[in-house]
Formats: sequence, structure tokens, C-alpha cells
Amino acid sequence: MKLSTKHLLGIKDLTKGDISLFLDTAAQFKEVLQRPVKKVPSLRDVTIVNLFYENSTRTRISFELAEKRLSADTINFTASGSSVSKGETLLDTVNNILSMKVDMVVMRHSATGAPHFLSQHIPAAIVNAGDGINEHPTQGLLDAFSIREKTGTLNGTKVAIIGDIMHSRVAMSNIYLLTKMGAKVTVCGPPTLVPKYIEEAFGVTVNYNLQETLNWCDVANVLRIQLERQNQVLFSSLREYNLSYGISRKLLESLKKDILIMHPGPINRGVELDSDVADSGQSIILQQVENGVAVRMAVLYLLSNKNQ
Amino acid sequence: MKLSTKHLLGIKDLTKGDISLFLDTAAQFKEVLQRPVKKVPSLRDVTIVNLFYENSTRTRISFELAEKRLSADTINFTASGSSVSKGETLLDTVNNILSMKVDMVVMRHSATGAPHFLSQHIPAAIVNAGDGINEHPTQGLLDAFSIREKTGTLNGTKVAIIGDIMHSRVAMSNIYLLTKMGAKVTVCGPPTLVPKYIEEAFGVTVNYNLQETLNWCDVANVLRIQLERQNQVLFSSLREYNLSYGISRKLLESLKKDILIMHPGPINRGVELDSDVADSGQSIILQQVENGVAVRMAVLYLLSNKNQ
Amino acid sequence: MKLSTKHLLGIKDLTKGDISLFLDTAAQFKEVLQRPVKKVPSLRDVTIVNLFYENSTRTRISFELAEKRLSADTINFTASGSSVSKGETLLDTVNNILSMKVDMVVMRHSATGAPHFLSQHIPAAIVNAGDGINEHPTQGLLDAFSIREKTGTLNGTKVAIIGDIMHSRVAMSNIYLLTKMGAKVTVCGPPTLVPKYIEEAFGVTVNYNLQETLNWCDVANVLRIQLERQNQVLFSSLREYNLSYGISRKLLESLKKDILIMHPGPINRGVELDSDVADSGQSIILQQVENGVAVRMAVLYLLSNKNQ
Repeated sequence: MKLSTKHLLGIKDLTKGDISLFLDTAAQFKEVLQRPVKKVPSLRDVTIVNLFYENSTRTRISFELAEKRLSADTINFTASGSSVSKGETLLDTVNNILSMKVDMVVMRHSATGAPHFLSQHIPAAIVNAGDGINEHPTQGLLDAFSIREKTGTLNGTKVAIIGDIMHSRVAMSNIYLLTKMGAKVTVCGPPTLVPKYIEEAFGVTVNYNLQETLNWCDVANVLRIQLERQNQVLFSSLREYNLSYGISRKLLESLKKDILIMHPGPINRGVELDSDVADSGQSIILQQVENGVAVRMAVLYLLSNKNQ
Repeated sequence: MKLSTKHLLGIKDLTKGDISLFLDTAAQFKEVLQRPVKKVPSLRDVTIVNLFYENSTRTRISFELAEKRLSADTINFTASGSSVSKGETLLDTVNNILSMKVDMVVMRHSATGAPHFLSQHIPAAIVNAGDGINEHPTQGLLDAFSIREKTGTLNGTKVAIIGDIMHSRVAMSNIYLLTKMGAKVTVCGPPTLVPKYIEEAFGVTVNYNLQETLNWCDVANVLRIQLERQNQVLFSSLREYNLSYGISRKLLESLKKDILIMHPGPINRGVELDSDVADSGQSIILQQVENGVAVRMAVLYLLSNKNQ
Repeated sequence: MKLSTKHLLGIKDLTKGDISLFLDTAAQFKEVLQRPVKKVPSLRDVTIVNLFYENSTRTRISFELAEKRLSADTINFTASGSSVSKGETLLDTVNNILSMKVDMVVMRHSATGAPHFLSQHIPAAIVNAGDGINEHPTQGLLDAFSIREKTGTLNGTKVAIIGDIMHSRVAMSNIYLLTKMGAKVTVCGPPTLVPKYIEEAFGVTVNYNLQETLNWCDVANVLRIQLERQNQVLFSSLREYNLSYGISRKLLESLKKDILIMHPGPINRGVELDSDVADSGQSIILQQVENGVAVRMAVLYLLSNKNQ
């Protein structure tokens, strides 16, 4: 079985077969990560550059660990302290790095489409680690992996995505992936952040009522409110957001069934999730992080030339 | 022989047996570091995160070298450019990193007690690389190792600690360690930085006279004046500090015997130590740095699950 | 064959034999880099510190890749977030790092002569990765390697160096190397940046006319205009610089023969080079970057104790 793509730019362009191959391969790597010896020689002699033009902790560390456990050599590049501050173009920067015989590029960039642009100009495989408000495909894959691990299948599973859908690349990658794989998706949040046209555009249901949404779903994937980006005028206060769309223990206990709670992190405790929800037995937030390494190992392995 | 502790949070909680085990194991690693091949496979398949919430050169590099020479995989995390700037809690950050199957945490934090708090909430072994003004236990161990290497024993050795005792985690770890191991400790510095109550609280002698103190001791451990932290009102000027508590060549030569000069670095030349003292044959400052790698190898090795 | 030097501080002090040995060894490493397995065990058990007091992308990454492909252990040190901000002297910093049994130092510093100073005080081999406006010897070597690879020999080859000769360590290292090896060198740029006395001082020709210079040369090595450093008064505007000394496609096509275009990067597209020149078939800019890794492998290998 082979991928239909050379890069992982977004979930939008993947086939169902691609997604299944990523998830099944990740399951194999997750088994490796349970062993005392967590390292495999799969990408020995492969050099990967982590090109982060935006801050990130967990994503960068998760990729770096995935690379090290595949025995790849890694080079870290962050925008500050670099040629970028000397006005070098993105393409020049990447071409220069690739000229040094680097095999793969993992890239985060604040500009939507930056990895797509690059992929048309360079020969190396590119993994999009988040581009603007467009996609964050490895997050989409690890979220799907985590759901499938718990529910057995994505097909027919009811997933609610809650928060600022409009500005979230995590939401976009989740929506593309889940709808492709037959899951049912409802998005929920304030009308300013969840416009009604999302229904038609992406084949999901919009529901502005949190309690109704939670009563419907099997899984609630709760997005981070981007305090650092968000226009605070959109909702009059964080307290108000918490009252309308934050998930409390009381709300969770009022539901007819036990739903799974997910969050891509970092959590704003007391805003989108109360602490006793984030830390409850229904939360699989830390399992998402654990699965992230296995999923990224699968992505890097399948996009390398080593799996043939 | 086994440690009584799972973490290294401070010297305060160690037994004499723990300290001896750390120092004896460090002596073995120091022998390894004299060989042409300085690498051992002891921590192969162990992943260590270096979590530095405060700037550091020598401590971070020393730990990183210790980890590499033990063949561990390392992940570096510094507070800037991280989820920390997004308001994530310390516990969330660490739990996330540990979910990625990280085995040990080396941590520096400006808040006193940060590693102790963490140790109550996470399963991984924690090494405190400095917390606020509380402790810097690996510095205490490497200082003791360096003294013992020169004098043969800590028991009965007379050690003077000179400088800002009040605000120094290095002083605290040294005092705990040396008094436990039977050394005699005098602390010396301006009364504003060395209050009299230290005598009773920590079982040391306070002496405000530098010449007397130096004439008494076998070893002088001279602390760095923290130019970047210190309230300059405490002493009217650095020049005045140098005149009263700085160690000059002339002062050193006026003593009855040759004492050892130690300093945790970085040195303010011309403030607490004159250059010709720092670079003299009596100075073992660079040997302290060398011993630091061996001591940190011992700490990481003994706290891992690999030594059983 | 052996080097006449223990360090690589500048091209100025090298013999013709040294330069040939560096270039011939680089050619062997370049062959290694064409293989699927690009790693050699040559510097296993050698620890190298990359000590960068000035920002750099390509040079730091190029050295780091060279080190990893030689199987060396590497430690990265950048000035920010370090003891440097605590006022530690350069010599103290380096002595501390070396005390940890580090074998080689790769160093970039804004102060001219910083690596020369260090070399008189420390035992480890030092590689100058750029010091102030003095020299950038590995850039000089990789430029020479790239020219020789295309022309077959340096002897008699006509090289034009174009731009801010006065403030360029790249220009200095190129001039020293090329004149030693028998190449003919013309420097070209505005009189404010290319004073006439350079002719006598360095044995090169000064020509203020770009078209004449390009018609004469086999190779044009075009320097970066340092937007971030340059006193803008020196030339009334970047546009004016481009009109007088920038190389356009039209200018290139007006020449009698096809010359090679080189640039140390990062390029200011539209200032010293138009995009269609930088990306043309005559440009060997990315090959320079590729050769940089092989050249740095050769330098590190020959300066280590492993090649005897």
C-alpha cells in the first residue's frame, strides 16, 4: 500500500486510503513506543530540518522525539536569530538548507499556504506542522487516531468540535478528516466564531447550544481560545465565554452518557475547560499527546524513501 | 547500595549514604572521562528533557554533556518561545512532555519549590538544576566532590563560604551537604547579606572578617555577587564590596597556609575575586567545572532505572 | 601531508600546501555526501562546541551538519540566554566549556581577532566561523572549492569580487586565498566601499566599472550588501546601488562570455543580484552551500587528532 501524495500539506488532499495508512502505521509505532527500547533504525541516514517560523512547544518537541526515535538526524531552525531577520526569502532559506543534503522539511509558518508554495519549488518531502489558519494535519491525524483507539472506528462516530472554529487550523484538519472517514461532525461556539455558512461549506452541522451538542456527541474536541490572537471584542469577556461555552464538571455530569473530552493544548484552565474536566477520567488529552509521537513517526516514515 | 530518594530535589533531604553514593559514583565516571572514548551506553533508550525556565550556560551545557556521554536522548526546552508564553501551567507543560514517554526531567526554575511541587504530581525522576534561592544540589555535590578530591575527606575539613549567603542557592546546598558530612563551615560577608541568625538555623559559624575567616579555613568557596539581581543599596558600591570582601593576591599571600579557592562561576573578576587569584595555582575553579560533568552523570545514572 | 597550523583562524596564515590539503580532503568528503549513507565515523568521541556570538543560519547549520556527518557530539552555545549576559569574559566562558572535555571550538564573534586571542590561551583547536570584518576562512575555502570544481584550477582564473569590499570578511578571506593560489582578482564596487589603496595592500586590481569588470572575469563573486549594518549614507539608496552595481539578466547577456555567478548568501534579491540572475544556470550559489558542508567536514577532520 502506498500514499497518493509525496508531502503532507493538509488533510484536504488525502484519500481515505492515505488516512488509513497513516493511522495503521501509527498503531504499529505506538507498539514500539511501549517497549523498553523505543528506538528503531528506520530513518538512519535521513536528515530532517525542523523549520519553525512560529513558536511551538509540544509540536516541535513531538516531532523532534519522533525523529530521534526513528534514528534520523535533526537540525532545528527557528526564525529568530536567523537569516530571516536579514530579509531572506522563504524559498532561499529552504533551498539553502536543502543544498546541504537535507531530506525532509517539517515546517510551521504563520502564512496560510507557505508549505504548499514550497512544495512546488523544492524536491524534498514537506510535512506541514501548522500553516496560518489553514491546516494542522498531524494534529488532525493524532486526534483521529485517539478517537479510533477509544471507539474502534471513525465511521458513524459523533464528534463535536467546540470553540473558535473560524480561526482554527486544528478544527479545519479535524473536519476534513472526520467527514472523509464517515464520522458525523457538529461544530459549536459563539456565532461570531462559528458562522452558519460552515454547514454548507464543510458538510458539518452548526449548533450554538453547548448542552444540546454535548448530549448528541460521543466525543467533544474542545479548542483552545487563542488569548494571544483573539480580538477580545468578539465575546465580551473570557468569563462570559466560560459561562456559555466552557465545559464544567456539573455540565458533564448532567449529560445522558459519558463522552470523551479532547483538547489540542495548551489548555486555558477555567476558560474553555474547567480543571476538574481536563483532569477527569473522561479526558484523553494526555493520550492525544502520547499518540502524537507515534503519528508523527508514521508520517515521517511513510513520506521518506525508506518504506519501499 | 541504593538511594533513599527517587528525585534529587535538594541536599537537605539526602542521607549521608546518598551523598557518599553520588560522590563515589561520580569518581567512577570521572575515570571514564579521562579515557579517549568518553561515552558509555548506560542510559541508551532513556530520554531526558532539560527544562530551563531560567538562563544558564554552564549548568545546561554540563547536563547536556553528561546526558550525551551516558548515551541518553535529550530534548531541550527553554521558557522563551514556548507554551509558557501562552499561559500554560508548569504542571500541564511537564505532563505533556512526559506523555511523550520522556523518562527524566532536569529542571531550573526561578520559583523556590517548583521541582518539589512537580515531584508530587508526576511519575518521572526530577533533578533540580536550581530553584529560586532554595537549592542547587548538583552544584553542592560537585563542590563537595572537588573538595574531597583535594583534601581526601570532607569530615573535619574547614570550609569558608564567602559572599551573599542569604540569596544563594549554591550556599544553601553547600551548607546542607558539608554539615551533614562532618565538615566545619564558616560563612562570611557583609551583615546585610549574612544575618547572624544563619548560625543557629544552619549550624554554621558567621564571621564578618574576611582575613580571619581565610586564616581559619582550608577551602574558600567564593560566591558570585549577582550583579543582575542584587539590590545595589545593600552595599554602597561594588568597589567597596571588593575592598571588604574581595580576595586579592596580596591577601592570599598574607595567609599562614595555602588555601584552595573555589567559585561556582561565572566570576566577576575584580569584584569577588581578583584575576590573579582566580587564575592562580590555588584556584580549582576549572576543576569544579570538569567535575560537574562527572557528578551529573552519576546523578542521572543513579536516578534512572538502569542501575539495578 | 600535514597542516602547518593547529587552528583555522584565517586564510592569511595558511600555506599553499594547507589550502590544497583542505580542498583535496573536501573533495573526498563531497564524494561521501553523494552516497546514500552520508555519515562517517571519523570524529566519533570528539566533542565540538559551536560558539556563536553573532546570528547565523547557514553557517551554523552547515557546521552542525558537518559535525553530525563526522559522528561528532555537538554542543550549541549562543550568546543570548547565556553567561555572556551575566558579564562573563570570553576567555572564562571558553575555559569553562573546555573544562568539560570539549575538543574543538567553532566560533563566530563580532570582534575582529576574538578567535586569535583565544588560540593563545586555550589548548583546543579553534575554527573561526567569522570574526568581525576580518576573515571568514571556511567561506573562503568553500568559494575556492566551488571555483576549482568548475574551472579545474585556481591558478590563472580571473575572479571579480563585487560589493562592499571594505567591510566584508568574505572578501578578505577570498582575496587572501585566491592571490596565494595564483588566481587574478579584481574588486569592484562604489569608491566609498572599495578604496583605491586596496590594490597595493592586497595585490588585487580595483575597478569601479561593473561592466568592464564582468567582461574581464571568469567568475563573479557578488557580496551581500549588509542592509542591517551599512551606513545608508554611503550610497544614496539601494535602488541607486542596484543601478550601478547590481547584476541584471540584461547585463549578463551583454557580456562576451558566460561567467559563473557566486554569492555567499543570504541574497538581497533586487539589490546586488536580480532574481533571474540568482536563479540562472550560470549561478552556482546553491552548489556553494552544498560544498560548504564538505569543506567544513575537511576542516574539522584535519584539525582533529583523528587524522594521524
